[in-house]
Amino acid sequence: MRRLGDAVLEEKIETLPLVDHHCHGVVRGDLGRAAFESLLTEAGEAGELGGSLFHSRIGFAVRRWCAPVLDLPVHADPEDYLARRAELGAAEVNRRFLRAAGLEALCVDTGYIPDSLLEPAELGGLADAPAHEILRLETLAEEVVADGVGASAFAGEVRTRLEARAPRVAGFKSIAAYRAGLELSGKRPSGEEVTKAAGRLLRDTERGLAGCDAPPRIQDEVLHRFLVWCACDIGLPIQFHVGYGDAEADLRRGDPLLLTGLLQELSRKNVPVMLLHNYPFHRNAGYLAQVFPNVFVDVSLGTHNLGDRAPVILAELMELAPFGKVLFASDAYGLPELFHLGALQFRRGLGRVLAEGVAEGSWTERDAARVAEMIASGNARRAYRLDERF
Amino acid sequence: MRRLGDAVLEEKIETLPLVDHHCHGVVRGDLGRAAFESLLTEAGEAGELGGSLFHSRIGFAVRRWCAPVLDLPVHADPEDYLARRAELGAAEVNRRFLRAAGLEALCVDTGYIPDSLLEPAELGGLADAPAHEILRLETLAEEVVADGVGASAFAGEVRTRLEARAPRVAGFKSIAAYRAGLELSGKRPSGEEVTKAAGRLLRDTERGLAGCDAPPRIQDEVLHRFLVWCACDIGLPIQFHVGYGDAEADLRRGDPLLLTGLLQELSRKNVPVMLLHNYPFHRNAGYLAQVFPNVFVDVSLGTHNLGDRAPVILAELMELAPFGKVLFASDAYGLPELFHLGALQFRRGLGRVLAEGVAEGSWTERDAARVAEMIASGNARRAYRLDERF
Amino acid sequence: MRRLGDAVLEEKIETLPLVDHHCHGVVRGDLGRAAFESLLTEAGEAGELGGSLFHSRIGFAVRRWCAPVLDLPVHADPEDYLARRAELGAAEVNRRFLRAAGLEALCVDTGYIPDSLLEPAELGGLADAPAHEILRLETLAEEVVADGVGASAFAGEVRTRLEARAPRVAGFKSIAAYRAGLELSGKRPSGEEVTKAAGRLLRDTERGLAGCDAPPRIQDEVLHRFLVWCACDIGLPIQFHVGYGDAEADLRRGDPLLLTGLLQELSRKNVPVMLLHNYPFHRNAGYLAQVFPNVFVDVSLGTHNLGDRAPVILAELMELAPFGKVLFASDAYGLPELFHLGALQFRRGLGRVLAEGVAEGSWTERDAARVAEMIASGNARRAYRLDERF
Repeated sequence: MRRLGDAVLEEKIETLPLVDHHCHGVVRGDLGRAAFESLLTEAGEAGELGGSLFHSRIGFAVRRWCAPVLDLPVHADPEDYLARRAELGAAEVNRRFLRAAGLEALCVDTGYIPDSLLEPAELGGLADAPAHEILRLETLAEEVVADGVGASAFAGEVRTRLEARAPRVAGFKSIAAYRAGLELSGKRPSGEEVTKAAGRLLRDTERGLAGCDAPPRIQDEVLHRFLVWCACDIGLPIQFHVGYGDAEADLRRGDPLLLTGLLQELSRKNVPVMLLHNYPFHRNAGYLAQVFPNVFVDVSLGTHNLGDRAPVILAELMELAPFGKVLFASDAYGLPELFHLGALQFRRGLGRVLAEGVAEGSWTERDAARVAEMIASGNARRAYRLDERF
Repeated sequence: MRRLGDAVLEEKIETLPLVDHHCHGVVRGDLGRAAFESLLTEAGEAGELGGSLFHSRIGFAVRRWCAPVLDLPVHADPEDYLARRAELGAAEVNRRFLRAAGLEALCVDTGYIPDSLLEPAELGGLADAPAHEILRLETLAEEVVADGVGASAFAGEVRTRLEARAPRVAGFKSIAAYRAGLELSGKRPSGEEVTKAAGRLLRDTERGLAGCDAPPRIQDEVLHRFLVWCACDIGLPIQFHVGYGDAEADLRRGDPLLLTGLLQELSRKNVPVMLLHNYPFHRNAGYLAQVFPNVFVDVSLGTHNLGDRAPVILAELMELAPFGKVLFASDAYGLPELFHLGALQFRRGLGRVLAEGVAEGSWTERDAARVAEMIASGNARRAYRLDERF
Repeated sequence: MRRLGDAVLEEKIETLPLVDHHCHGVVRGDLGRAAFESLLTEAGEAGELGGSLFHSRIGFAVRRWCAPVLDLPVHADPEDYLARRAELGAAEVNRRFLRAAGLEALCVDTGYIPDSLLEPAELGGLADAPAHEILRLETLAEEVVADGVGASAFAGEVRTRLEARAPRVAGFKSIAAYRAGLELSGKRPSGEEVTKAAGRLLRDTERGLAGCDAPPRIQDEVLHRFLVWCACDIGLPIQFHVGYGDAEADLRRGDPLLLTGLLQELSRKNVPVMLLHNYPFHRNAGYLAQVFPNVFVDVSLGTHNLGDRAPVILAELMELAPFGKVLFASDAYGLPELFHLGALQFRRGLGRVLAEGVAEGSWTERDAARVAEMIASGNARRAYRLDERF
């Protein structure tokens, strides 16, 4: 079904620079097999019952696409792959994969960066591209509590710190999906509601500190919602973790449709809202991107974990989602391979979707090239105002 | 994978007359670009953040498939397309697209027809096919309230008016999905329950009239359910809006599985129930069509909005749905292009699905031709008893 | 896109012996058309409104794939097919289809075996393969109640009987999805909670016996959960009906994500949990198989009912599910054709998915052959410890 011209289009897309609008740090040091497998998917670790995680789409994708970056033949055995990885050392491995990703900018979620992970500036250096920060709202609020701020001063202090950091960050991120779930009311909470919720958190934290020394943990619907509205007032894009994540995420509460009430309110504010990952609810996300003028979508985490199925979910996302609302993100975390795999599989998926459209006669090659550029970087540059702000 | 014979099958399907069992009026007058884009999808309007809605599957489908109907080359630019549209004038544009759709009958939802939209008879005239009315249940009930009927007379007056109009309508439609949501109980409400619910509506309406002059609005689960049972007693097919719709629809409450309890009761009555649109819950709808003897399904709104992805969702619908339960509908509203696109993409999708089955050896070409005829018009004629009743 | 080598792979997979880890008995006697159609899908029976169930994917699959087993040409007419079936007689028909399935072992759910169905040993004899029993938890508990055991002795008696039967069964099955639904709490119920719930069941049963002579029916969330924990203590695999089933199943309560809380607890016990069927929630099930080390998945009922769409849903399941967690099951019930169709369509689907990966370069042919063997039988043998236990 492909015409000669499509190969040209797909080749062009294979070298398009990408804005990776959502990613994390990678591990600074060397990794053994167990640690490598535990970072490969959202599973805690590979168990004996289920066998190796190399026997999964992403495991096969590593052997196919990452092996050559380490000078191995395609489909190298896992043992050979891990041996070569150790031989080169983490610094060289990180450098090779970050560079191979072909990024023109990165937006790095700094919500959880233990010392073992590279900082945004280090990532940017390896990728040879500017690395912007995405500030995790719950982390900032938990710092406020940990610093001993009382309930009545909580809201003000959160606002002050957000405003202070806003000029240097590209956007904010909410992890409500991992805590209270995405069913957030559309209403801006009152000052009194926030103070009461902060008070409950403070009491729980004190009990925790007295008992098992737990750090403060935002998991109250009122506080998640309060943080989203603070971010909205500042006017920078707000990312939401949606759908697919690890076993703690409780996927039942991660359907983007649960955000409908809040999105209705936020749509009046013209603040970009970014729905991340979305799998297996990506068609629901595509619908939201169509009906709300400020909603953007990606299939980030799915892109690297689904291996050669990436074109399928991208095609499903792009059923209803206007092409001006679709973004790229690797959601890489821990393993530098995920930057490379995310970028490579996204480019292949996008190339496939757009070339099939050309072959079908759905759009011209010129239109396809224009759409590819929008999705690869143009939409993200526009939504995050990257050219203006940085 | 295609054999020569399949092209013949697909060509036959491209000219099969269709019964469009669910559609609306189109705009009588000329449209500027903003108005055109706002009617193209379920988005309120295209915003600056997200770019033009011509950059979406349906936008590209208009340029590819509708441009030639207006004597333009395929893939004409949006500006050229809109200019030519204006040049021809709405009357001619409406005529061309309605005729191009190749319909043998239309069932038109008359629940919301402002003066700016064509009436069913006008649509039928343009399409050169009989146009039957689908009566929206909530609209009739709201008229009863607006006419000043009291709570205790409400139920009787609704029944009287429904019975009076029944001989001239093809079926009824419920928009519970847009109001209380589809989680309707299976139980027929008692007279007392209906009277109480009508009383609440009357009080709300009076308050509304005193305040902001709101017309009566059915949005009480009891009243939606009461209307469905009234329709069931009359015995004509009942359509339900399901799934995909505009931002007001709250897709969370639009999953057809929410109707399970009610469908269990209605299945004992042998009254056809039509689940409209269904995307992205169309596999759930296919399941319901298999297990309930009276449930019929389509992917109408999805067919035109998904552009060249129409074959994909039709194939998914037809996984479990018996082929005797699948219907065609354009769900065209506002733009006459949507009649043409819905019909064309449906025929292409059905042709693709059936021809692939022939190529796979799943069924014979003769069987495929028989199934095509059933789905194009036979199932609708049988379920609506069109040959008997009109 | 296929290379020559892929045909070899697909041919190999077409003859791979399968472990059918979930199936039922088939009808002992001859069947008329109405009885045959009523057993073909999850519909109660074909109605006049919807037409023959031969006009559905599974109906066409019977004509294509089952007709030759009865010495008829492919695509034989339904009438000819049923006539030939009657001519051969049920015993011969059962023998042919069970043998054609190419099974190396069967795990038979014995929860509901009226006299009209073959026993596991009879099935095994026809299939020429060992047939193991899967014990339905609710059935055993209902027998305890029917035997007049009081509320306070209920829990102990259930445990005693389960332990007595455990050495001879391959695993257990919960049908919570058909009764209270899958939203089971993760907490092990206390002895007092179980006694109370058993007391409620006894009172309801007595009322039932006095009135309409209803047998005891487990449908209390506490009791379903209690049974799962009893099974967990024994340590054998636990199967859950998930998703697609007949009209009684209420698919709303059959999403495997509803099990998340319970799976989190069970994942600490290292007891295999088998999510059966899963359609249309199979992507959700694949996610659970990735993040929980003890969760296994299949698309059994979907495989035979979806006909030639089986490769599509298998590919969707295998997006996130590690290949070491994917199983085969026919979920055959009533018709011996379903053993043959389930096995054949599963092999074709698996062959298609793996061969496309080879053609894409996603994995080598050697890797594909290894994965095929795991999914066909190796994963089930490991999870059920078939080689050790039987």
